[in-house]
Order: sequence, then structure tokens, then C-alpha cells
Amino acid sequence: MLSLLHHPLCPRSRYVRLILGEYGIEVRLVEERSWERREEFLLVNPAGETPVLITDGVPAVPGASIIAEYIEETEGAARGINSLLPKEPRERVEVRRLADWYNDKFYEEVSGPVVLRAARHNIRYHLAYLGWLARSRDWLAGERLTLADLAAAAHLSVADYLGEVPWNEDDAAKHWYARLKSRPAFRPILADTLAGLPPSKNYADLDF
Amino acid sequence: MLSLLHHPLCPRSRYVRLILGEYGIEVRLVEERSWERREEFLLVNPAGETPVLITDGVPAVPGASIIAEYIEETEGAARGINSLLPKEPRERVEVRRLADWYNDKFYEEVSGPVVLRAARHNIRYHLAYLGWLARSRDWLAGERLTLADLAAAAHLSVADYLGEVPWNEDDAAKHWYARLKSRPAFRPILADTLAGLPPSKNYADLDF
Repeated sequence: MLSLLHHPLCPRSRYVRLILGEYGIEVRLVEERSWERREEFLLVNPAGETPVLITDGVPAVPGASIIAEYIEETEGAARGINSLLPKEPRERVEVRRLADWYNDKFYEEVSGPVVLRAARHNIRYHLAYLGWLARSRDWLAGERLTLADLAAAAHLSVADYLGEVPWNEDDAAKHWYARLKSRPAFRPILADTLAGLPPSKNYADLDF
Repeated sequence: MLSLLHHPLCPRSRYVRLILGEYGIEVRLVEERSWERREEFLLVNPAGETPVLITDGVPAVPGASIIAEYIEETEGAARGINSLLPKEPRERVEVRRLADWYNDKFYEEVSGPVVLRAARHNIRYHLAYLGWLARSRDWLAGERLTLADLAAAAHLSVADYLGEVPWNEDDAAKHWYARLKSRPAFRPILADTLAGLPPSKNYADLDF
């Protein structure tokens, strides 16, 4: 069975949990406080960051985008049209571009640990960009749900946990997120709570 | 013909130039000063960062790792054992882990534009890690040259341009870099010069 070294409020860990959820792959969640820089953890991932996927008899798979590619190659590719990463190189570019947008840029500017103070300011342009995408396409990267939607939803869910997303500023973004929130893969994410830091009022509300 | 929006001292752009060089793919280089946030450039890549690959009749391919995957899928995969990304999912994890290590972590801590002041301090542990990898394997990710070597060399070459790499601290790292430097794909990188900011003394020296 797979194990995932994660943290409940790590948006990149949530991204991986959503992928595994979409594919119906069971995973054992092991909480890791990466900031404690546990020696055993650094041996598994020298970069010292969550998430890390542990698979039997295989070296650890570290980092959200690397785990996503690994799951695609070992599980997703066989699912044909239901894969979260399309087959065609050009389409893959757009999915990866948006997944990286959230895992890197949004993380740096909104959902990452160092920048939570700045989030309130940066979230607005990100929300506008998300709304623009959601208005022009069925899903963020095109006609189907892909890794891009899961990356975006994972990162937004952390800002939303903290009540930092002004959903009323963009209806298209809000409706897109409502669709994501209703998926079974999202349920464990909505059930996350941290001792001492309860989620915002509408965090787990499907009709927010 | 391909065009690459790049900057001579952008390490992620250099990474893409090395990949194209290794595969013998011609490219037209177009200098982009991303910090000027040219409107036309932002339309091509909303993230506002170099590199961006422009291919005829196809949407722009933005970002070093996305370009690398795109080149692999359209050009590299057909080269079999001479591809820069191995076929086997587990091996791909290690290549991608190291490529990301340089494109993300090293970039943040050493070769990226904001952190040049901090580079002198961070470069030492990065050099030690590189030396450790170079001592335990023929190439960074295993027995063959891969994207991981090119990512590492691209980023180190920028710190080296500025004379910030204490090569004498690690022989294995130095020998690994000397091997990379001698490759034909490296020649245009070594020929880069910026007006007003000449390279360090041994920058282009193959026997440094």
C-alpha cells in the first residue's frame, strides 16, 4: 500500500491526495512537520518538503509534480481518456502549465507557508485569473478534468481554510470550485481540521 | 524553426538551450528582459518568466520543466537509449527530482535573480551535495547523461559566470562540471557575455 508523507494544510500534499482520490487509489497518510527537519525525513527527501510518496520496494517519490507524473505513468496512462493528463503533447503543455502555475506561482504568492500574510492581497488577481479560465473553458485546461484543476483546487482550499478567498468577487471561479468541492476525492480534504486552527465558516460547505 | 524567448543569464533558459544542443535541434534565440513585463510577452506567458519556446502553429510552451517534457515527448522519446529522460517510471522520478532540485531549489537559493547576494553562502552546501552525487554515480541521476545533469550545469554556469562557485572545495563536482563544459551543447553558453558584466576569469576555460 502507498503511504504519503504530508501535512493537512500543505497545498501540494492536498494536490496529490486529490489525484489519488480521483483514481480511487488508497493511501496511508502520515503527517510530517517538514519545518522540524527530521533527519529520517531528510534522508527520504533531501529537499525537506512534503509531499513524499512511499511505494513498496521503490525509492521514495518526492515533490508534488514528480509524484503526479509518476502516478500518471504507472496508473493514469492506462485509463485512456479518463487520465488526468491528456495524451497529446500540446495538450499536456497546457495542463502542466496550469498545474505548475498553482504549485509554484500561487504557492509562492498565496498558499505557501511564508506568504500567508501577503495572501490577502495576491489572492484577488489569482481569483480573477481563475475566473477568466473558468469562463472560457469547461475545466481549467480544456474540456475535461485534469491535473490542472486538482492543483488549483488544492491550493485554493488552503487559502479557503483560512477564510482568505473572496469568492463573491468572481462567480465563475466560485462555481468552478463548487464543482470541485462536490467530487468524492475532495471529501477527506474538507474533513481536515487542525487543532487550534479551525477552518473558516463555509470551508466544508458545498453550497457556499 | 523553433524560437526561444530567453535571457543569457537566466539559468532556466540555459537548461533548455543545453537540451536543444544535446539533441542537435536548431533554435533562434530572442532575448527577453522579463523584468520589463512587456505586454506582448505576458500574453505569451502570463507567468512573465523566461524561458518560453515558440513553435510554429502551436501555442507557446512556457517554463523550463514544461519545455523539457515537451521536447522529450516530441523529440527525445524517439531517441531510445539516447533520450535525456529514461523510459522506466522509477528512473524518471530520480531524473525529474534532480532537475527540479536545480530548477527550483538551487534557483531559489543560488542562481535566481533575487538571491544573488545570498548565493555565496548557499553555494557551498549545494556544491557539497553535487560532489556527493558525482562521487556515487557516473552522471547525476545514474549511468547516463540526463536532464538532471543539464539542469544542474545550467544553474551552476550562471553562478560560475559571476565567479561565485568555489570549485576547489570539491574535486568530484569540479570534474563533473568539466565533463559537462566540454560538450558541444555547452559552447554557446560559454560564449555568452553581457555588456557591462564580463564573466569570471575561468568561466569559459575547459581546464579550470
